[in-house]
Amino acid sequence: MAITVVGSVAFDSIETPAGRRERCLGGAATHFSLAASFFTEVRVIAVVGEDFGPEQEAVFNARGIDTRGIERIAGKSFFWEGSYLENLNEAKTHTTELNVFAAFEPKIPDAYRDSHFLFLANIDPVLQRRVREAMPDVRLVAGDTMNYWIKDHRAALLEVLKGLDMLLINDTEVKMLAGNNNLVQAARAVMALGPNTLVVKHGEYGATLFQGATAETTARTFRAPALPLEEVVDPTGAGDSFAGGFFGYLASQPELTPEAFRRAMFYGSVMGSFAVERFGTERLQQVTRKEIDDRFILFRELTHLA
Amino acid sequence: MAITVVGSVAFDSIETPAGRRERCLGGAATHFSLAASFFTEVRVIAVVGEDFGPEQEAVFNARGIDTRGIERIAGKSFFWEGSYLENLNEAKTHTTELNVFAAFEPKIPDAYRDSHFLFLANIDPVLQRRVREAMPDVRLVAGDTMNYWIKDHRAALLEVLKGLDMLLINDTEVKMLAGNNNLVQAARAVMALGPNTLVVKHGEYGATLFQGATAETTARTFRAPALPLEEVVDPTGAGDSFAGGFFGYLASQPELTPEAFRRAMFYGSVMGSFAVERFGTERLQQVTRKEIDDRFILFRELTHLA
Repeated sequence: MAITVVGSVAFDSIETPAGRRERCLGGAATHFSLAASFFTEVRVIAVVGEDFGPEQEAVFNARGIDTRGIERIAGKSFFWEGSYLENLNEAKTHTTELNVFAAFEPKIPDAYRDSHFLFLANIDPVLQRRVREAMPDVRLVAGDTMNYWIKDHRAALLEVLKGLDMLLINDTEVKMLAGNNNLVQAARAVMALGPNTLVVKHGEYGATLFQGATAETTARTFRAPALPLEEVVDPTGAGDSFAGGFFGYLASQPELTPEAFRRAMFYGSVMGSFAVERFGTERLQQVTRKEIDDRFILFRELTHLA
Repeated sequence: MAITVVGSVAFDSIETPAGRRERCLGGAATHFSLAASFFTEVRVIAVVGEDFGPEQEAVFNARGIDTRGIERIAGKSFFWEGSYLENLNEAKTHTTELNVFAAFEPKIPDAYRDSHFLFLANIDPVLQRRVREAMPDVRLVAGDTMNYWIKDHRAALLEVLKGLDMLLINDTEVKMLAGNNNLVQAARAVMALGPNTLVVKHGEYGATLFQGATAETTARTFRAPALPLEEVVDPTGAGDSFAGGFFGYLASQPELTPEAFRRAMFYGSVMGSFAVERFGTERLQQVTRKEIDDRFILFRELTHLA
């Protein structure tokens, strides 16, 4: 079933211990949609400037991603510059230029309206909510957010959470959102705000799935590992690629059984592990379904008893 | 097969968000031997002072642990005081009194000499080496260490590593020991120093097993989770309890197959998860083999696809 994703399509200049890349294609919606495209039909809603040309367009086209919802307007695309020189787990932001994104008004093509799955990537919660409300018929809505929205746009974010079936965020964010440093307690508190499914990403340690917590009962949990990697070239987009693998796999399933969620966690980790092997989206552009399935088997061997 | 463990038997005063305990029974060899005692015969080598009385002795006796190698001398036992008020993952040490431990000269009872397994808990590497050399017939030697020995007693520690089959340390320690911030690269470098098996403990994120790395090939890896816990009462001894479950299970096996190592990782995580549920050794004193096996099943459900 088709996923519509709304979020940033951007240019990133990135420096890591492995080197530097200028203005490579990036943005949460880009990483998400490339990762999800290996599992299901993906449709993007975003805004870009005049610097987004045929070369960038071709990256989406090669994966069969619907870009009719990527609006092109005068000006420059969203631009981010950051480095991971001291710590591969945390980006240091040098520049953020919103550019055309500053006045982004998401428009939903009619052709997207039969999407059953909606992913609200990490953007202003006001925009997330607007897209959510414009697509009332979707069956399942998942979203992401970040510390900036949690701290400074809490009221708007809480409105978004009410309309989410699933939230995918990292350790720091779930604890900040709940105001609680215990992961299990924080997860329960965040699930009380709306989402019945919560995925907490732990970076190089994998991710935890929480489902069905109530005030009285603890959530059912599942832990997926991350692959211990000899070299992380560029962590940018790892979380969005995880989300794409996770949500893409779910959207491809006839039924959302507990087992489908567990396998989705593994596919999320698999796509995240590929994403960091090269700069930007380079690896996700080249990876094959065979490599994805082989790595899924590797993840199983990495964690399973006989 | 029997394990001999050498390490500290101590008194700990501990403060955590859950409360405070004065002078409860602690020490690496204590946590280790309690955890391992559920799987195999355990024999302890340590030194204690006059404050170690029948009450402490009874804790070991109740679990059938051989204490003939616990020497009693004039003076006070090793004492540690610490808190985890800001961060449950890292102890803040307030007091360390070596007391009788300052002049510890490990003596190995004749009855221990047929032990097939030896665990060198976290103590001065000079002592670890002495015990290792005094027991040349053991079949398998594992050890632990800490940042203090890595930084300030490196030469002595490197000598110990040469004689180890297995090393169990945490993330920070393996990276410090290797001088490398990438886990996989650090693991390979540390294994080149001696141990063919390396277990890296990640605290609340579980642990990774590395085996059989060479200069050319990457180690085989296996990841065991930690249980997401609603409340961590006292993290003291979690790592030693992990080691006890891990090494104790291995010692109970007829053959050290790859599958035995994987299951040992799970039993390590299981014992660590019990240890933190109460202060000091309280939980390990009360846990039953049935509870251990039930939690093993829970860990499997937490991580396994159908």
